[in-house]
Amino acid sequence: MTAVAAPTAGAGTYSDDELARDLRWWAAANYLTAAQIYLQANPLLREPLTPDHIKPRLLGHWGTSPGLTMVYALLNRLIRRTGQQTLLVVGPGHGGPAMLAGAYLDGTYSEVHPEVSQDLTGLVRFVRQFSTPGGVPSHAGVHIPGSIHEGGELGYALLHAAGAVFDDPDLLVACVIGDGEAETGPLAASWRLPAFLNPRRDGAVLPILHLNGYKISGPTVLGRSPDEDIRGYLRGQGWDPVVVAGDVPARVFVELDAALATAHARIREVQDRAHAGAAPDGVRWPAIVLRTPKGWTGPRTVDGVPVEGTHRAHQVPLARVREDPEHRAQLAGWLHSYRPEESFDEAGRLAPELAALAPSDDLRLSASPRAGGPRFRVRPLPLPDLADYALAVPSPGAVRHETTRPLGELLRDVLTRTGRTDGGGDFRLFCPDETNSNRLGAVFQATDRCSMLPVQPGDESIGPDGRVMEVLSEHLCEGWLEGYTLTGRHGLFATYEAFAMVGASMIVQHAKWLQQAATEPDRSPVPSLNVLLTSTTWRNDHNGFSHQGPGLIDTVAPLSPDVVRIWFPPDANSTLVVAEECLRSRGRVNLIVVDKQQHLQYLDLEAARTLVSSGAAVWEWAGTEEPDRNRSDLPDVVLAAAGDVPTLEVLAAAQLLRDHVPHLRIRVVDVVDLMGLLPPGEHPAALDPERFADLFTDTVDVVFAFHGHPRAIHPLVHGRPDVDRFHVRGFTEHGTTTTPFDMVVLNRMSRYDLVLEALRRSRRVPEGGDTLARLCREQLRRHREHVVEALEDLPEVRDWTWEAEQR
Amino acid sequence: MTAVAAPTAGAGTYSDDELARDLRWWAAANYLTAAQIYLQANPLLREPLTPDHIKPRLLGHWGTSPGLTMVYALLNRLIRRTGQQTLLVVGPGHGGPAMLAGAYLDGTYSEVHPEVSQDLTGLVRFVRQFSTPGGVPSHAGVHIPGSIHEGGELGYALLHAAGAVFDDPDLLVACVIGDGEAETGPLAASWRLPAFLNPRRDGAVLPILHLNGYKISGPTVLGRSPDEDIRGYLRGQGWDPVVVAGDVPARVFVELDAALATAHARIREVQDRAHAGAAPDGVRWPAIVLRTPKGWTGPRTVDGVPVEGTHRAHQVPLARVREDPEHRAQLAGWLHSYRPEESFDEAGRLAPELAALAPSDDLRLSASPRAGGPRFRVRPLPLPDLADYALAVPSPGAVRHETTRPLGELLRDVLTRTGRTDGGGDFRLFCPDETNSNRLGAVFQATDRCSMLPVQPGDESIGPDGRVMEVLSEHLCEGWLEGYTLTGRHGLFATYEAFAMVGASMIVQHAKWLQQAATEPDRSPVPSLNVLLTSTTWRNDHNGFSHQGPGLIDTVAPLSPDVVRIWFPPDANSTLVVAEECLRSRGRVNLIVVDKQQHLQYLDLEAARTLVSSGAAVWEWAGTEEPDRNRSDLPDVVLAAAGDVPTLEVLAAAQLLRDHVPHLRIRVVDVVDLMGLLPPGEHPAALDPERFADLFTDTVDVVFAFHGHPRAIHPLVHGRPDVDRFHVRGFTEHGTTTTPFDMVVLNRMSRYDLVLEALRRSRRVPEGGDTLARLCREQLRRHREHVVEALEDLPEVRDWTWEAEQR
Repeated sequence: MTAVAAPTAGAGTYSDDELARDLRWWAAANYLTAAQIYLQANPLLREPLTPDHIKPRLLGHWGTSPGLTMVYALLNRLIRRTGQQTLLVVGPGHGGPAMLAGAYLDGTYSEVHPEVSQDLTGLVRFVRQFSTPGGVPSHAGVHIPGSIHEGGELGYALLHAAGAVFDDPDLLVACVIGDGEAETGPLAASWRLPAFLNPRRDGAVLPILHLNGYKISGPTVLGRSPDEDIRGYLRGQGWDPVVVAGDVPARVFVELDAALATAHARIREVQDRAHAGAAPDGVRWPAIVLRTPKGWTGPRTVDGVPVEGTHRAHQVPLARVREDPEHRAQLAGWLHSYRPEESFDEAGRLAPELAALAPSDDLRLSASPRAGGPRFRVRPLPLPDLADYALAVPSPGAVRHETTRPLGELLRDVLTRTGRTDGGGDFRLFCPDETNSNRLGAVFQATDRCSMLPVQPGDESIGPDGRVMEVLSEHLCEGWLEGYTLTGRHGLFATYEAFAMVGASMIVQHAKWLQQAATEPDRSPVPSLNVLLTSTTWRNDHNGFSHQGPGLIDTVAPLSPDVVRIWFPPDANSTLVVAEECLRSRGRVNLIVVDKQQHLQYLDLEAARTLVSSGAAVWEWAGTEEPDRNRSDLPDVVLAAAGDVPTLEVLAAAQLLRDHVPHLRIRVVDVVDLMGLLPPGEHPAALDPERFADLFTDTVDVVFAFHGHPRAIHPLVHGRPDVDRFHVRGFTEHGTTTTPFDMVVLNRMSRYDLVLEALRRSRRVPEGGDTLARLCREQLRRHREHVVEALEDLPEVRDWTWEAEQR
Repeated sequence: MTAVAAPTAGAGTYSDDELARDLRWWAAANYLTAAQIYLQANPLLREPLTPDHIKPRLLGHWGTSPGLTMVYALLNRLIRRTGQQTLLVVGPGHGGPAMLAGAYLDGTYSEVHPEVSQDLTGLVRFVRQFSTPGGVPSHAGVHIPGSIHEGGELGYALLHAAGAVFDDPDLLVACVIGDGEAETGPLAASWRLPAFLNPRRDGAVLPILHLNGYKISGPTVLGRSPDEDIRGYLRGQGWDPVVVAGDVPARVFVELDAALATAHARIREVQDRAHAGAAPDGVRWPAIVLRTPKGWTGPRTVDGVPVEGTHRAHQVPLARVREDPEHRAQLAGWLHSYRPEESFDEAGRLAPELAALAPSDDLRLSASPRAGGPRFRVRPLPLPDLADYALAVPSPGAVRHETTRPLGELLRDVLTRTGRTDGGGDFRLFCPDETNSNRLGAVFQATDRCSMLPVQPGDESIGPDGRVMEVLSEHLCEGWLEGYTLTGRHGLFATYEAFAMVGASMIVQHAKWLQQAATEPDRSPVPSLNVLLTSTTWRNDHNGFSHQGPGLIDTVAPLSPDVVRIWFPPDANSTLVVAEECLRSRGRVNLIVVDKQQHLQYLDLEAARTLVSSGAAVWEWAGTEEPDRNRSDLPDVVLAAAGDVPTLEVLAAAQLLRDHVPHLRIRVVDVVDLMGLLPPGEHPAALDPERFADLFTDTVDVVFAFHGHPRAIHPLVHGRPDVDRFHVRGFTEHGTTTTPFDMVVLNRMSRYDLVLEALRRSRRVPEGGDTLARLCREQLRRHREHVVEALEDLPEVRDWTWEAEQR
């Protein structure tokens, strides 16, 4: 038996026997892929194919699958040879049946789902369930063991791969990127990974850019680009690509095997040198460009029209197999071409020599304990005691402070406690170049900004060992954090509120993943995706309208209630408590919305804990109700706030009411956990009816100042008693470069607007109300004049504060 | 006088005189830039600088500005020499004061805003108004003449530039891209423009990648990357970059001038050859990589710390000029270094030899009629008669048809009518490779998919003259269309509903632009941004949960009511009418939400026109009320729908009610213009109270089936009478790969769920109601069982239809 010499150094040899066995495994995987798309019975074609064996509705994507199964087969070989701990991220997630085939052939699928056994009965279930109502969906999603990536919405494969290898030096992620996905923005930006990947403390990503030339119905840009251009493109971003191309399976197998072996050896060499102390910059990481036909080994032509190697192989290449005997015969011929009888024995069990090709136990691509299976472990974050960071707040409003700064100090110590000697750890902060701007700069006492690029004199807090990931892309920050948490580590994404919308769709998709993960019996909960929205709408007065937008709240609120939480801590200590809650939580998307600027501080740590744990509270000290009143004694009007600036305006409004109409019974409510407003049954955090009534009553009008778009409150309270009584002020899309106070006036959420609304909605017409209303209208008129006059005679436009009013 | 020989062929010569004058213009522009950031009086420093001359709050971004003014100066020179019609797109939009300085020096600013005159009085206003409440915002926004790009949210500069030159062969867009922006996803993907830019019929984009090395607080990836890598990166994507670097102004001016001249000559050569019939593929377009210091010519050090050439020059380099005499003295020195006394005469008028550097009239960068100024013209779309495309619908539900297909036929003829002989035109369709999938394939009878890459045998409808822009990036589709409409042309972006969220933030920013544009006296309305959301949530049953998401509705609904409209045509003919309305409209963001699959058709063209023009209508034929009833005769319950699938389910529910409880008075309402639900005063499309009551009454309960998240209806109806009575069903984030009917059951919006809710909410308990309720519960139970059983015994899972029920 001769051995095929691998063409590249380091690849070792690939004997004919080995090659033949891997090709047989590949045939079995391709068979199972096609069988899942077409068959509901007769899974090994033991009987002549009849219409009854065919699914009533054919769903699934064949085109990308044979390339994926080939990569799977050769990664198995690489792992067998090297023991390399490996994950496979499949960008073309449409190729779900290929990944299911791999997991089934690995044996993992049957271990996780014993009813899908390794025999004929199991095989029937295996092919039936695919893309069938009540069965399993068609993408490489959370239901496939070993997957950390769905690949439904394209663009995030390389980001998830990167997030997975950060701080995991023993891990290799092979990441298949389709040429369709390569046209997306997030993917295009994610090629910059080498600028952020440290061979001394991180694992490695091996991108496999799989060019099969076509999207759904047209050619791809990269598919039609010359190799030289693609090489230059990737080299220019820190990769050292090699092209593997062909359509003769055995040749492509040999060449791809050699490319994988060379790449792996090169990665180990880079890492070994880094561990030995070599300077980590200037590394070029291996990458593979793989050109194979779309729908490879499938029908060459259908009804006389070319299919293999064209966009027509994208989904179901033979569509009318139930109705059309010729199509059916062609399908039978296609399926038989994989010789299922040589792969599976009489009982439907995989031939032992093929089963032996799966790596052992945890090394199987489908069984990695990094990918969320039953052996997945999350180390709880070693959070320090919040008391060490809390501001002393002797009485509400007595202190002004940058609200996010104590959080930065907490994060600093979390970074220290989670650090390793090689620079790695299990906590990272992700931020589009705004860590300092967002007042979290204390973290730089513990670690640097991560960069593998040359450091220059005068650089501050930048270096290869940094665990603060600053890149001017919300997509990269979000996607890296997703990959990091999906593999069991912790993090926070801190970003300007308005530009958090850039990654909105990623958050939606991640929430869907978490929602589905909770229903998979073998998946343990992963750390939550924590997003800090700061530099908020109300305090981007210096940057203007493009920087003012609370839209992410509208995006996240309607997602699965079991996943999403939106927090509005009113001050620094409540921000600490919320952050602790979020960093400890699992399986959630937490939005924390709080501004970074100097704000009044209201709560000491204990009060903050009480507020956060109850979700919302009456602030007795700010209202005028008797402390020892009966539950049935109702206020005349309720003032409520969610958010820091709304809280300030509500408190100032309450002060005006206290001073001018002291007999009016007003109640002030502060809401920190927005989802508590939803009626019971709609969200786990929903306040029960009694608690809701204790806050808002069941009948009294509520003037609500909200951080986001005002109408966002109405969908939450719908289902609560008499919701017509909720009168909400918030951001009505009026903004520009101006002062903070002008912002609340422009959007009619100022203290004066709130007082006027409260007087209008109060159950009683209070004595002195008219005078107060006149005063408020006068203040608003003066403010308007003042702004208009400012251009003529530019005094400092006053930024009214609550204390200023108190004086 | 000696002439400096330009180092590159085609650049001509740059005489010392010319250079000196351009440097003086540059100094004047830099002076005005810094003056805007700092001064509120004494604009030409005729008096010693005192604290009173300084603005109370210093806002603005100096760092990027000197590079922008240099580009401005040299583009002026290029235009003077060549007469090239040119736009400048400024990615680093923070450099707004630089663009304002340019527009002021051009004279355009004073033409548009006569109160900001070309004298001392005008200069005071000019510097005061910048970043001042009541003044002008700080970015390169819609308020700056000549701007089509704000640059607040980074990533879209090259997309807007591309959109502007499509089909405009005489136009050059110089596009400055900051090295921060270059890290974003959308920008990274947009480098692929050469694959889509046709030199025979399109204009040219000249990217100027401006590397000043720093973001807000850290270095940039490209700033630290070697030239060779950047060259390879850009060459690999179809550009032919040249690097210009330096910090000696005169040298950089000469080199950049030569680079611009060479690039321009090369562009003209490429275009001339293409017009002469040369094959258009294989073109490499010029690009310039410009390395200059951040905050160039500003303070070198402040308080002993380096500022020029570092991230500290990003915003206001001297922060304490009001309080600190040393800072103030340094500011005075810095400002004087530009010698304002040589640029402006005693009266504050620009020196004539500098004023003469502005190109003439419309050739000024700030006065291009392409950029939305007063001489901007939009050619109305030549829309054909809808009657030629309308489906014959003899009675409601009598016909099934793919709803978007007639729209495709309409678009085909719009493409034909708007085409030019060189392949250009003024209408394009943008779509992420889904035109056929979205059933709009008829357009390929009129034009191709656009691609400059090699065409291969077997390719269908692809070529350089195509006006269907298919690229697998929602960012590119959206951004190109924005640039195309901002320069007065028309288009449609058709996309899968769920993945439209990818571009959500771009839509938000574009809506903000349109909202502000409407308040600028010199801006004419531009064609609307029309987004067709198809392959919708309800009918992505074949693709699964990642493809099921109506989130863009939640994003768009809270934006400026003067801008946004969301349409839910229930069938094909109403889709045609809505499309006509949207394509004719100006200054809006229109979302059209309708599925592409086979659906029942209800309305003939006339009925569709009636429905769309009224926004919502009672479908008498589907309810059980007497046609000649009094207005005061109320139904027992109202069934309402917005969206095609909700309409089907409501009609089927009404049928069940008619059949089983014929005495119940039910009313069926179909809503097509969602914004009509908002109360009067909240939206121009809001239905007046009488009309609203005619549809929904003021008191009767409404069971509402909605296409999107159900709670999205509540914020719209808040303010209408007694909104507790609205009971909405919609997409509650339950999805998978399944059948269309299972989708509505999973989300409790099925006909049976609607009947049960209607019976529960009806004012009367109808005879037969219990029986019907049992029947519905039984149907739901059977469906569940059926799905669960499907895996065991896989019959075709029935897709119930309304007719099936009718039988």
